[in-house]
Amino acid sequence: MQVSLLAIPGIPMVKPGDDLGALIHEAVQAAGMSFQDDDILVVAQKVVSKAENRLVCLDQVVPSPRAQELAGITGKDAQLIQVILDESNEVLKVRSGLIVVEQRLGFVCANAGVDRSNIQQADGGEVVALLPEDADASARQLRARIEDLTGRHIAVIINDSHGRAFREGTVGVALGVAGLRALQDRRGEPDLFGYRLQITEVGFADEVSAAASMVMGQADEAAPAVIVRGLPYTAGEGSALELARSKEKDMFRYSGPQKG
Amino acid sequence: MQVSLLAIPGIPMVKPGDDLGALIHEAVQAAGMSFQDDDILVVAQKVVSKAENRLVCLDQVVPSPRAQELAGITGKDAQLIQVILDESNEVLKVRSGLIVVEQRLGFVCANAGVDRSNIQQADGGEVVALLPEDADASARQLRARIEDLTGRHIAVIINDSHGRAFREGTVGVALGVAGLRALQDRRGEPDLFGYRLQITEVGFADEVSAAASMVMGQADEAAPAVIVRGLPYTAGEGSALELARSKEKDMFRYSGPQKG
Repeated sequence: MQVSLLAIPGIPMVKPGDDLGALIHEAVQAAGMSFQDDDILVVAQKVVSKAENRLVCLDQVVPSPRAQELAGITGKDAQLIQVILDESNEVLKVRSGLIVVEQRLGFVCANAGVDRSNIQQADGGEVVALLPEDADASARQLRARIEDLTGRHIAVIINDSHGRAFREGTVGVALGVAGLRALQDRRGEPDLFGYRLQITEVGFADEVSAAASMVMGQADEAAPAVIVRGLPYTAGEGSALELARSKEKDMFRYSGPQKG
Repeated sequence: MQVSLLAIPGIPMVKPGDDLGALIHEAVQAAGMSFQDDDILVVAQKVVSKAENRLVCLDQVVPSPRAQELAGITGKDAQLIQVILDESNEVLKVRSGLIVVEQRLGFVCANAGVDRSNIQQADGGEVVALLPEDADASARQLRARIEDLTGRHIAVIINDSHGRAFREGTVGVALGVAGLRALQDRRGEPDLFGYRLQITEVGFADEVSAAASMVMGQADEAAPAVIVRGLPYTAGEGSALELARSKEKDMFRYSGPQKG
């Protein structure tokens, strides 16, 4: 089996209100590429957020006392902390330089996934980008738009790079999914003795996101979209929320030192 | 940029003492494929462990009182728990059906990565497989063997599928690395405004492992080895331990409820 990861070159700088599906379609055509049935299109969250105008100007944010307190602990800007709090269901951990939350969509991540730019607007305010309002809906919309433009049946994943517990370095993970099951049962290798196929529930959309992220990050020019071709998958409406473990099920959210 | 993920078909059932590098080389040739310079070969931990005879027969294990206690909590076999304890630096979490440890190599994972088979030996004992004694060394040895057989310069990653905190489903991660830096600095997409390239420390070997895992798990026949071709990477001796966060740096290992 051969799987191809194809970076889409030449996607222009995305602006709020842009038709992202059309921009990607045009870039694919301009590169002499084309979509095929059953392709998985992986798109970086940043460009989705920007097209959806999920931008906040920090100097228009009034930090609460709680944001000011957390700013003191983290050393981060209180207005940025307020934006993060507004995007969060719950704060999990705070220490110098770091705030880990359950982001509004249900994913545990640093800074609620808010991207900082360090770029000043003309009026002096710094603009930050939030995650999409509903990343599954964003994926569904992109999927419908590209299927409409191309006549091909595809799946779409919106990915981001997140840190994680226990391991260093960020990896690509899925925030939004359309057209495939985010969790899939895998018939893995036969067991060590060859008699039995082990069945495991695999974070499939996260593995695809990591694969795409590895290509996005290594391309010479910005490549915020990657086509994954030749990979069998279980179709379905799908939702990245399949990947979000509920707090009740997660042993690393609240529990204290091991007493066993 | 195009990256190819090539499953290597026809690798036979691996037995203890087998020359795994030669088996992979022969399978590549038999499939009409060949290694190219700068390929990354990703090999599933299971076949490495089996070739290295990292097998333990459970009925020869005498469980300690501690293993018996944890067996009561988890509902797992006390002899299996003893094997897990012998493979662990420290137990992090225990609950019904689950034991999470820092495995001897330094990685946090369930069951110390011990694979159960449910297959009885002729004498009635069940055999389980441990992780390689030193997975980086295993990767270096495989790399040297295949470079010797082919005259090509390659990198090698030994991967496994692990669960994680906060997210459902297993994903491929790196246990051993040779020939590339496991953590790499990534020139990512330009920021939202196109002015600045963000630099992030990426869990590169984990992203490659996830990409390979997604192919291994979808192949029609067992494909415990995948060639990743066309992906730029930072060469170097490398070690998967670059990816293991020290306990002092990890906020999710011991800390109690958030008080911020």
